[in-house]
Amino acid sequence: MEQAKDGEEERDGARAGRAGADFLQLDPAEAPRGGLAGWLAERLRGAIADGRLPTGSRLPATRALAAELGVSRGVVTEAYRRLSEGGQISGRGRNGTVVAAAPAPAPAPAAPAPAPPDGPFSADPGPDVFAELRAAPARYDLTPGVPSLSAFPRAAWLRAERAVLDGLSAADLGYGDPAGTPALRRAVAGWLARNRGIRAAPGDVVIVAGVSQALSMLVPVLAERGIDAVAVEEPGSMGVRRHLAGRGAATPPVPVDRHGIRVAALRATGARAVMLTPAHQFPTGVVLGGERRRELADWARAGGLVIEDDYDAEHRYDRPPVAAFRSLLPDRVCYLGSVSKLLAPALRTGWIVPPPELRGPLAAAKRDDDLGNAVLPQLVLARLMDSGDMERHLRFLRRRHRLRRDAMIAALAAGLPDARVHGAAAGLHLTVTFGGDFDDTALAAAALAEGVKTQPLSWHRRLPGPPGLVLGYAACSPGAIAEAVALLARARRGFPGPPRR
Amino acid sequence: MEQAKDGEEERDGARAGRAGADFLQLDPAEAPRGGLAGWLAERLRGAIADGRLPTGSRLPATRALAAELGVSRGVVTEAYRRLSEGGQISGRGRNGTVVAAAPAPAPAPAAPAPAPPDGPFSADPGPDVFAELRAAPARYDLTPGVPSLSAFPRAAWLRAERAVLDGLSAADLGYGDPAGTPALRRAVAGWLARNRGIRAAPGDVVIVAGVSQALSMLVPVLAERGIDAVAVEEPGSMGVRRHLAGRGAATPPVPVDRHGIRVAALRATGARAVMLTPAHQFPTGVVLGGERRRELADWARAGGLVIEDDYDAEHRYDRPPVAAFRSLLPDRVCYLGSVSKLLAPALRTGWIVPPPELRGPLAAAKRDDDLGNAVLPQLVLARLMDSGDMERHLRFLRRRHRLRRDAMIAALAAGLPDARVHGAAAGLHLTVTFGGDFDDTALAAAALAEGVKTQPLSWHRRLPGPPGLVLGYAACSPGAIAEAVALLARARRGFPGPPRR
Repeated sequence: MEQAKDGEEERDGARAGRAGADFLQLDPAEAPRGGLAGWLAERLRGAIADGRLPTGSRLPATRALAAELGVSRGVVTEAYRRLSEGGQISGRGRNGTVVAAAPAPAPAPAAPAPAPPDGPFSADPGPDVFAELRAAPARYDLTPGVPSLSAFPRAAWLRAERAVLDGLSAADLGYGDPAGTPALRRAVAGWLARNRGIRAAPGDVVIVAGVSQALSMLVPVLAERGIDAVAVEEPGSMGVRRHLAGRGAATPPVPVDRHGIRVAALRATGARAVMLTPAHQFPTGVVLGGERRRELADWARAGGLVIEDDYDAEHRYDRPPVAAFRSLLPDRVCYLGSVSKLLAPALRTGWIVPPPELRGPLAAAKRDDDLGNAVLPQLVLARLMDSGDMERHLRFLRRRHRLRRDAMIAALAAGLPDARVHGAAAGLHLTVTFGGDFDDTALAAAALAEGVKTQPLSWHRRLPGPPGLVLGYAACSPGAIAEAVALLARARRGFPGPPRR
Repeated sequence: MEQAKDGEEERDGARAGRAGADFLQLDPAEAPRGGLAGWLAERLRGAIADGRLPTGSRLPATRALAAELGVSRGVVTEAYRRLSEGGQISGRGRNGTVVAAAPAPAPAPAAPAPAPPDGPFSADPGPDVFAELRAAPARYDLTPGVPSLSAFPRAAWLRAERAVLDGLSAADLGYGDPAGTPALRRAVAGWLARNRGIRAAPGDVVIVAGVSQALSMLVPVLAERGIDAVAVEEPGSMGVRRHLAGRGAATPPVPVDRHGIRVAALRATGARAVMLTPAHQFPTGVVLGGERRRELADWARAGGLVIEDDYDAEHRYDRPPVAAFRSLLPDRVCYLGSVSKLLAPALRTGWIVPPPELRGPLAAAKRDDDLGNAVLPQLVLARLMDSGDMERHLRFLRRRHRLRRDAMIAALAAGLPDARVHGAAAGLHLTVTFGGDFDDTALAAAALAEGVKTQPLSWHRRLPGPPGLVLGYAACSPGAIAEAVALLARARRGFPGPPRR
């Protein structure tokens, strides 16, 4: 065998036997003879000055750095002493040696995107509108879409994580199945069978980073099959509609009435796919009725594809459970779910149960996008589902959310007697509509000025309709809800009331 | 306030005061008068038969199910007793009541994709070739790209996770900044400053699900700017080239010699972007030379964009550190890194440090793709980086990998004396080339038949060149490496030797 002689640097390194440190790429061969400590101090000073070592950052232990550089420990100690005398670093006992002050300013942070003139409630909300609304300071947050996050089962999560780490093999830490860890696909199939009436094999489940990524993947997969329009509910989620449109799909609106989507109107759009929230329509809270389900099934059997967004179906209070539409028609429904509303959006974990023909293409899309979700959280989640901890958590959430829902209904009755309440039997939010004729975006802006974040109903609507607000109650205590609704009532006073009868 | 009367189901539920359980959507109102236990047993039997309750799954505790259904506990106990007598379920002490046997077969699993006739080493490897190679049974796995996974710092990870969960606010569990959690962006900026010579503000860092997702996002962002070709190194990573091509980019090859990519040849392609591995070229291991760096900087200043894939630069053994190319030219380099080779690919966490003009578009692309990486693992990783645990782990890995590298070089010298070794001074793999003229894919297939997984060099090459293999050593013990190389030598015997001189 001969060792290849490729590459100058490699040869140089081998010839000179130079070590060099990764820490700031320090190379003692650069130091003048006998001047190692001075050279090291100078290099550290430079790194502090140009921001590579920011204030508060920790320097390596003298022993470790000396070993890396192949110099005596005294050299490093001396260099640190000089910087310490100059005030650039300071020793802090067990915290080690940290950078105390930078002589030069830190690099300028990236310029933030300019905020639109009217904040999140400008006339034409941009793609960052949800981020702007989140960033807006407010005392009370009644925006919809999150469960009680303070209820997150930290102890159960940590217990499951410990068990997962104990049982993990080295192979589990490599590149896994992009469609999901087998344990989680199995656990999700079981969860859906027990809680949503869906019969699916583990191999039918594709694990994704939430419904958002599911749509990112689905639109191009459908486009390859000639489906370039996905009809959406009207009113319906602005976020979903924009996400679909952002990926290039047309999104014809289909009106929703008190029985759910109007299937005749869906048929009239000519779209071959529709995105639905059958168990608890967003934002109205309507349940897709039995007759509509049958009509929709007929439409789907004749070639239509139903994308079922089952976003908060597990949360119900005073109505019987509604099985997923997928349980009726597995061959024509692409089912989407996630833990965002069961545990926390921050987990970024969801699932697709596609119809058979889309299973392979969606698994390939996930592989091509990011090679699959991270494995550890998948295994932890599988444990929580298998152990019954998830069902226990859901029962706890349901009791808590119900009290909060009741508190909101009571507060609305007291403070906003003309508000009509929709969809309060389930979910994490309710919708109110008002009798007057005014711009609900201006009402949401006035509420924000009072310290209460809400979403105007018109965000989720493209056709005319009464003004309204979408109000999340799951993440606020009953006391906070009462105060927030009182402030909302104050904001409401600046707008016209219902027309006289 | 008036309560809306939308939706039949909602009204029915409220009127009848029906509870119903989420578990299998059981509704006791369906039961015949006085026949609750029989009805419940029948429904459970049905769910076991149709696969919604698979063998081994657990039934709810009698008390919990009784409460959910609003029936007496005796009803549930009686139903379980009947199923138990029928052999469908069994009590298992602390494990509760589990489904023992399904009378009907479980649903058929999704059909696996048909394997190509020649396994992973068919003439034209398909998009699933890496998955096929991973799935192929073999005694020794010398495929490149993973560090020692048995070294994963489980205790440090769990410690950091506990600290993160202790300090977490409810807001941390909501929807976060899609470009990354501030704590991790800060930690990565510090890591890159200390270890890769890069000066970046936290706001310059975009957290992604690995280099794979970074490329998925980058190709369309570049296409919007009129850049539809990304030149790649030749030889160069087949995975990267295919990923770029799969997203629609042209990938003109640019030859690599012993100083790295030939910049004159790059210029000749006319491509305005190039994907490079400057610190340790994949697969040859060449370091981009000083003169080439200057030429490349000139090319970039004249309008070129360098995508720097810094995939394994932290792993080096007997050469001085090589600072990232980004440190020279922050305005023209889009830097990509990940923890796949520092900790584990299963973490699916990486980062982009884009040039200023791409910062906003790439953050928006991440938002539109999946709303950001999961938060908990980001916070855990930030803690590992801030605490010094990551640097300690890297030092440990380096000692371990160096021994493995040495073991492989010794084994090659003993068993494959005509193999020329390239790029062994750093990284997680080395490349060998052979003097003869034969198909290295056939050699890799023969090695697999002997029980050793490798990658043929020709996978990573589009222009002619000597046959070879890419051999990862980081994930195998020295003893396993010796045995695997001995088997490789046996496979090698079936192929022609070097030409006589």
